[in-house]
Amino acid sequence: MSDTHSLDALVQALRRLPGVGVRSAQRMAFHMLQHDRDGAQLLARSLQEAVTHVHHCALCHTFTEGEVCATCLDPRRDATKLAVVETPADQAALERTGAFKGRYFVLMGKLSPLDGVGPHDIGVHKLIDRASDGVVQEVILATNFTAEGEATAHVIGQALKSRGLVVTRLARGVPAGSELEYVDLGTIAHALVDRR
Amino acid sequence: MSDTHSLDALVQALRRLPGVGVRSAQRMAFHMLQHDRDGAQLLARSLQEAVTHVHHCALCHTFTEGEVCATCLDPRRDATKLAVVETPADQAALERTGAFKGRYFVLMGKLSPLDGVGPHDIGVHKLIDRASDGVVQEVILATNFTAEGEATAHVIGQALKSRGLVVTRLARGVPAGSELEYVDLGTIAHALVDRR
Ligand SMILES: [Zn+2]
Ligand SMILES: [Zn+2]
Repeated sequence: MSDTHSLDALVQALRRLPGVGVRSAQRMAFHMLQHDRDGAQLLARSLQEAVTHVHHCALCHTFTEGEVCATCLDPRRDATKLAVVETPADQAALERTGAFKGRYFVLMGKLSPLDGVGPHDIGVHKLIDRASDGVVQEVILATNFTAEGEATAHVIGQALKSRGLVVTRLARGVPAGSELEYVDLGTIAHALVDRR
Repeated sequence: MSDTHSLDALVQALRRLPGVGVRSAQRMAFHMLQHDRDGAQLLARSLQEAVTHVHHCALCHTFTEGEVCATCLDPRRDATKLAVVETPADQAALERTGAFKGRYFVLMGKLSPLDGVGPHDIGVHKLIDRASDGVVQEVILATNFTAEGEATAHVIGQALKSRGLVVTRLARGVPAGSELEYVDLGTIAHALVDRR
């Protein structure tokens, strides 16, 4: 309908968000226009602010508003250890453990040949430069334990090892707090292999 | 982190969308900033356009960019029949059946005492004015067949009948507990024919 052009355009724009189909997009547009126009304007401003100010850290590739991110700038972090993660969310998960005090390299993705995502797209050459700075002594591969995350860790690990770098991988094992009876067999098998 | 203020603000703004929790909001923000900055800017513009141009039809309350919506302006529609629906999506579902050629009144909501939504909030007084124009001969209650939709139909029906108007309800061909938006066309068409 021509008299709802703006509404139709909004629904189409919302559909570009991941996981949002046409029904969800319609529900979101309806909700904002009927109940939360302030929220709609806030979201519009936030999108423009983020697109304008957020870019990638020159050292670790995560999102930052500076040239280099706060984690990379923090002198208290151990510069000899470099953890490689897929996304800022994975980095945040590691940070919440409090168990890692080193630096990061954030791939901002993972190898996915079917989607056309190759080593260049996740910055493998930049990771190699970063890890070859003469200060880094260990690269810890902390990609996800999915098929694509494992493949990514494998490819990156090979590239780094071929340049003489020490490469480790997060241990596979039984999740803390779980009962063996309810853990899948593959996980238990890996935990046996990786026992310490 | 102060160096990701814009990103944090974007995640907070996305959480105001219905059905979007913190994880979804982070995934959306990450996706847009990493893979679809054009989409982010398009969404920002679409939100502002919609907030600026979309308001309510003076006659039926649905969203429109004009003073009166295209459906209300269409001279081929039967002005003697007025269908009352909860949302534009429900109206669209009725339209897709092709079985109704009358006019609409869109409540843009439903009675929900627990959420503080009373008759005034869904424009019942405006509906009564609209239905009392001397042209409307039948008001067809096409609210959803949920508990709240039934209660809304009951309250509206009583108010309209007490003013001498002829009020019908979609037949129970529509499965109880379902929302019109998700019901197949044939079922809605039968329910229209069998309205009581
Ligand atoms: Zn950094
Ligand atoms: Zn209208």
